[in-house]
Amino acid sequence: MNSYHFPVRVYYEDTDHAGVVYYANYLKFMERGRTEMLREHGIAQDTVQRDHGVVFAVTEAHVRYLIPARFNDALDVETTLTLAKGARLSFQQRIWRNHHGAEQLLCDGTIHLACIDAHGKPSRIPHHLMALFQQQLPQPKSNSKEAS
Amino acid sequence: MNSYHFPVRVYYEDTDHAGVVYYANYLKFMERGRTEMLREHGIAQDTVQRDHGVVFAVTEAHVRYLIPARFNDALDVETTLTLAKGARLSFQQRIWRNHHGAEQLLCDGTIHLACIDAHGKPSRIPHHLMALFQQQLPQPKSNSKEAS
Amino acid sequence: MNSYHFPVRVYYEDTDHAGVVYYANYLKFMERGRTEMLREHGIAQDTVQRDHGVVFAVTEAHVRYLIPARFNDALDVETTLTLAKGARLSFQQRIWRNHHGAEQLLCDGTIHLACIDAHGKPSRIPHHLMALFQQQLPQPKSNSKEAS
Amino acid sequence: MNSYHFPVRVYYEDTDHAGVVYYANYLKFMERGRTEMLREHGIAQDTVQRDHGVVFAVTEAHVRYLIPARFNDALDVETTLTLAKGARLSFQQRIWRNHHGAEQLLCDGTIHLACIDAHGKPSRIPHHLMALFQQQLPQPKSNSKEAS
Repeated sequence: MNSYHFPVRVYYEDTDHAGVVYYANYLKFMERGRTEMLREHGIAQDTVQRDHGVVFAVTEAHVRYLIPARFNDALDVETTLTLAKGARLSFQQRIWRNHHGAEQLLCDGTIHLACIDAHGKPSRIPHHLMALFQQQLPQPKSNSKEAS
Repeated sequence: MNSYHFPVRVYYEDTDHAGVVYYANYLKFMERGRTEMLREHGIAQDTVQRDHGVVFAVTEAHVRYLIPARFNDALDVETTLTLAKGARLSFQQRIWRNHHGAEQLLCDGTIHLACIDAHGKPSRIPHHLMALFQQQLPQPKSNSKEAS
Repeated sequence: MNSYHFPVRVYYEDTDHAGVVYYANYLKFMERGRTEMLREHGIAQDTVQRDHGVVFAVTEAHVRYLIPARFNDALDVETTLTLAKGARLSFQQRIWRNHHGAEQLLCDGTIHLACIDAHGKPSRIPHHLMALFQQQLPQPKSNSKEAS
Repeated sequence: MNSYHFPVRVYYEDTDHAGVVYYANYLKFMERGRTEMLREHGIAQDTVQRDHGVVFAVTEAHVRYLIPARFNDALDVETTLTLAKGARLSFQQRIWRNHHGAEQLLCDGTIHLACIDAHGKPSRIPHHLMALFQQQLPQPKSNSKEAS
């Protein structure tokens, strides 16, 4: 529901000699999607770094490649925040292509990040960012307990 | 035991403005390691494509980022074949850095590939390649059953 | 006058550990600008390849780096076609950044391309494409002779 | 005579869907060649940055693409220092491929760099580096005047 959609066009730079998008480059598309989702909510990562001395570093990426994207494809990168807790963020991301009117899921990924300080140590997500992230999370049902 | 080691140097092109290797680029290093492991065993992917009409496409990548690599680091990409069955290959990969005499594990990944034909359909791994792959797999104990 | 403007955002993937856009990546931005300029005029390169069996390959690139672009910068890639003749195309490209209300020229380049067939041989630009390109060229003054 | 040779293998990551090395990626190969030439002469750029507070930034690149490199090609990047003066360095670079016993020139480039400080201002090349660079330059004939 709170997912964010960002368009990505496939250029020559993204493809490889098998005629499809090189597998590492989907991670670039996903990172653009996360960056633009944050920007949409007023979070510019360079400002965060300057003001709070922290950056978000990917700690784990799990990507499944279902259908290859090709040169000139117009893709839709869907980004959903699924966790914001302590120093950790998690995103679910899906890359779609409209093919003859039907949406095809090309690739999906689960990406975990940590908020780290200038020494690379985990650091609690700054309070006002956490408040923004919380608003993007799926709302728990009234009786549910927060997972630890 | 049958793991293959390949050296990778970190250049400017691999780093990002956080001063470390960009997260997608470890997938490039891993792919170089797989390519060189295959070459070491006499398998050139362009020849395979020409002779058999098949390529190996990544279907899933699961990477954990533990310690960031930096500009000028001399890395060791360790590649171990863990599965070769039907149209599927799986590799376990680890990226190491020697730091003051101790080996640090920076990153590890599990990469699954499928042998696909020119139409993108899964295709059994050609017989003589499969024979080579089988030699790289850890040998099952005499009484063990093959996993399905 | 007939220049085409295309926006490019700088992401982590584009930067290096010096904190600026890696020098090769400006060539990616320029290629996106050329691709989108062609698309604006109804020319999709995959369609050209399929229908005419030709692609446009860069034969020469001359780039000057004046001011470095940084993470999160919103850039403007300006593309001007300066030559379309036989099998050859030339573009003048400039990358701009708006800085406190003033346009800064970060980088400029002259890019020459050749129309080549499936064997890599130069091939005259297909007629209807050439007609489109001619419309984008600066119009010669009435008394001027065509340069050879 | 004082040219430095560095081998580069072409991987999937370097190619594009036209089946050849993407034009921006030759600049990566050239930068690897320059980096390794400096290393050969005892110059590690991270040490230079730490000890002298300067980095070398590309100010101009002029590349001609003659023959495309392909997946799995074993390339030879030849790097020759042609100028070291004040804050400026220039290199001539050529990328070769051995094809049936003959050396093919695929690509050549002239790359100009400036030594810059932490504020991006040109800064004289540190003295001991300049002494090393001078040794790599072609020796002027006894009667020649130094070019300005």
